[in-house]
Amino acid sequence: MNKPTPLSGFPEFLPSQRTVEREVIATLSRAFELHGFGNVETRAVEPMDQLLRKGDTSKEVYVLRRLQEDDNAAVPNREGKGMGLHFDLTVPFARYVLENAGKLEFPFRRYQIQKVWRGERPQEGRFREFTQADIDIVGRDTLPFHHDVEVARVMLEALGKLTFLPGFTLQVNNRKLIQGFYAGLGAPDVEETMRLIDKLDKMPADEVGKLLVSEAGLTDEQAAKCLELATITATDDTFVEKVRAMGVESDLLDEGLTELATLINATAPLNTERVRIVADLSIARGLDYYTGTVFETRLDGYESLGSICSGGRYDALASDGKTTYPGVGISLGVSRVLVPLVQKGVLDGDRKVPSTVLVAVNDEESRAAADEAAQALRAHDVACEVSPNAAKFGKQIRFAERRGIPYVLFATRREDGTEAYEIKDIRTGEQVPADPATWAPTNESDLKPQVVTKEQEK
Amino acid sequence: MNKPTPLSGFPEFLPSQRTVEREVIATLSRAFELHGFGNVETRAVEPMDQLLRKGDTSKEVYVLRRLQEDDNAAVPNREGKGMGLHFDLTVPFARYVLENAGKLEFPFRRYQIQKVWRGERPQEGRFREFTQADIDIVGRDTLPFHHDVEVARVMLEALGKLTFLPGFTLQVNNRKLIQGFYAGLGAPDVEETMRLIDKLDKMPADEVGKLLVSEAGLTDEQAAKCLELATITATDDTFVEKVRAMGVESDLLDEGLTELATLINATAPLNTERVRIVADLSIARGLDYYTGTVFETRLDGYESLGSICSGGRYDALASDGKTTYPGVGISLGVSRVLVPLVQKGVLDGDRKVPSTVLVAVNDEESRAAADEAAQALRAHDVACEVSPNAAKFGKQIRFAERRGIPYVLFATRREDGTEAYEIKDIRTGEQVPADPATWAPTNESDLKPQVVTKEQEK
Repeated sequence: MNKPTPLSGFPEFLPSQRTVEREVIATLSRAFELHGFGNVETRAVEPMDQLLRKGDTSKEVYVLRRLQEDDNAAVPNREGKGMGLHFDLTVPFARYVLENAGKLEFPFRRYQIQKVWRGERPQEGRFREFTQADIDIVGRDTLPFHHDVEVARVMLEALGKLTFLPGFTLQVNNRKLIQGFYAGLGAPDVEETMRLIDKLDKMPADEVGKLLVSEAGLTDEQAAKCLELATITATDDTFVEKVRAMGVESDLLDEGLTELATLINATAPLNTERVRIVADLSIARGLDYYTGTVFETRLDGYESLGSICSGGRYDALASDGKTTYPGVGISLGVSRVLVPLVQKGVLDGDRKVPSTVLVAVNDEESRAAADEAAQALRAHDVACEVSPNAAKFGKQIRFAERRGIPYVLFATRREDGTEAYEIKDIRTGEQVPADPATWAPTNESDLKPQVVTKEQEK
Repeated sequence: MNKPTPLSGFPEFLPSQRTVEREVIATLSRAFELHGFGNVETRAVEPMDQLLRKGDTSKEVYVLRRLQEDDNAAVPNREGKGMGLHFDLTVPFARYVLENAGKLEFPFRRYQIQKVWRGERPQEGRFREFTQADIDIVGRDTLPFHHDVEVARVMLEALGKLTFLPGFTLQVNNRKLIQGFYAGLGAPDVEETMRLIDKLDKMPADEVGKLLVSEAGLTDEQAAKCLELATITATDDTFVEKVRAMGVESDLLDEGLTELATLINATAPLNTERVRIVADLSIARGLDYYTGTVFETRLDGYESLGSICSGGRYDALASDGKTTYPGVGISLGVSRVLVPLVQKGVLDGDRKVPSTVLVAVNDEESRAAADEAAQALRAHDVACEVSPNAAKFGKQIRFAERRGIPYVLFATRREDGTEAYEIKDIRTGEQVPADPATWAPTNESDLKPQVVTKEQEK
């Protein structure tokens, strides 16, 4: 066949680039586990009626059909028959909770890092196949508010550990606060008001203001107050007084203010130079079915990507009619963050192979001895590979160099005829005697490929 | 919605069961990396013409279609238009090698652990979605035979590290050996002879013998010799003499004998009680396009699953017309091995959550202090969760017990009014003072969920 070309919207990594993705996934996984979140994987497919459950057909679901399927058989369609690929990890997780409720312990904390698929037109930062990392806490019947604080804290801490990434700003708001404010203000259509406010990151405020009047039925004064509310941000609970000063009152608003203040007070101490949480009263999360806390996240210097980590509180993540399962969670767009940075060369692995050592081969007759030396290294967890051929030593060094392997081990013959080994750090040229059974690199970081960051070219 | 029911052929694990799968994947990954195999992930979809490249439409490919797709648009079909889900990891890997050849270093070692999909009728050990773990070594133009030895050694070593699984027998043969033997014998249709010999694990030898005569055109004597060859097994190179004693001669047979003897001599020293490699001259791998070494693997006590780990040498894994990429590899059916063992309860994780410690909460007012103690534990890599409520202490202990959390940490007040902590091992009842900033479990294995094996009920 001819050289294949990449499929638009289906990003793939080279082996060195994959180091970055694996490091991110391992770091996130461990951060989540430290907080008691267990890992779950769900199947890639769900029944179409589940995928279309919210009546939201704007998601471009990929529907499946077996190649050999009888042409007359019921095929997947828009009416909800058949199966499709999941477009997020929330729908399959809600189904998993209902299906296994009798075997799970609540509150149930899970993290899930999997690919999802959307048949959207590919554009910058949007893919047809991409990886998400979700954390959720689900309760049976009830779920105390302190779990909202918990998911924020866990994600902040996890993002903080991805030290090779740019900084993050986790923006948090509360639906009760804004819905209560709009209602207290006398807005005739609270939902529509919220949907329009959500457009503030894509549209100038004065245009949103006009829409609030023409589409949400607000007076000019009410619209102005909604826009004013959305300008409030704070890294502590000072936003409460600012909102109160606007003179709007409602019980729901009070509840929202208390929740948001509690969350920001409990999480602000985690703020660092790189990762910070702010109360941002413009965050509304549009059409999604959140009922309290809502999160969005911007990546410093990549604001055009939009929110790369979003979520919030659902009072009914799932329900089987008898029992309701409230949940709170956040979903990080792993591909959305990594693919642009990797493709621009800002992030990469420092070598193309896991090998720390290339074991040189003097001649094919001594390959078995080289294999043995390699096994001695592996026995104490030093990754290595044996040279594929017995080329001249200089050539074998260049072979290691091209792969980014830092060390070359080679056999020498002592005067008494026994074999001895020396190891060369090909970055420095330093060469020392080495026993394959005990040798380890001076820098532990040489044991595994490392993520390296390069200054982005402007 | 009503309680959903599982989809046949799409197995999913509970959180404790997922521990087993994660441990297997982590162990395999590290074993492969120690030998210089780098990880790669390919997209889930391939163009249909790639998936049907070998003209083999017996694979039940799932074809994809976007829900919103214009009904008149070209839809995926048997003529090779559109996209489908990959049914193995070899087709996408061959495409990946061609697509990225200029950026890869050869010989290129990669491992790939991903889900694949086949729309087959589900049956024991066969799934519609399942995980495979593949290792391959690919050369440009040439690939020396010692890499055949290498992949066998790497997979043997990796399987050896999965100590909680039953034993494995890796059966190895060589296509050159059997094809050379059939040709030297004067078989009129070598391919068909090989295809029929491959049926020996499903059909009695005398019936295969009849088919060799009726369908492959052998004489009774030739058929008997082919069946005799297939009875030969050996854990060392003694098979060579047995084959020679049968009086059949051909250059290809000689080449095959030499290769297989080399492989078995080099790998037999790795045999253990649990994991062994044998030369088994009945292994043919039917229709697959192998050109030398072929592998199959049986799981002790689960022989009815068939081969759970298969592969071999392809002289042309991929080709772009100018350059050919020979490869040798083995694919382990992770789901095929694990799902039956997990579903029968033979394998499970020892707890439902990653938490080593439950931090008790005396009352909601002291939740912040409990959170702080938890953070002190996490800071030195001890996973923990804070009790979701301030129930009576006995209730909090039972909460930990249900999750399999071994330790409960709780605050006590000293006479001077300062807080102190004690930790209780709820398995033994032992309770000792503990500083959350330094405490660690006596047994390091308590730090993470462990895989436990249970005697299978007969």
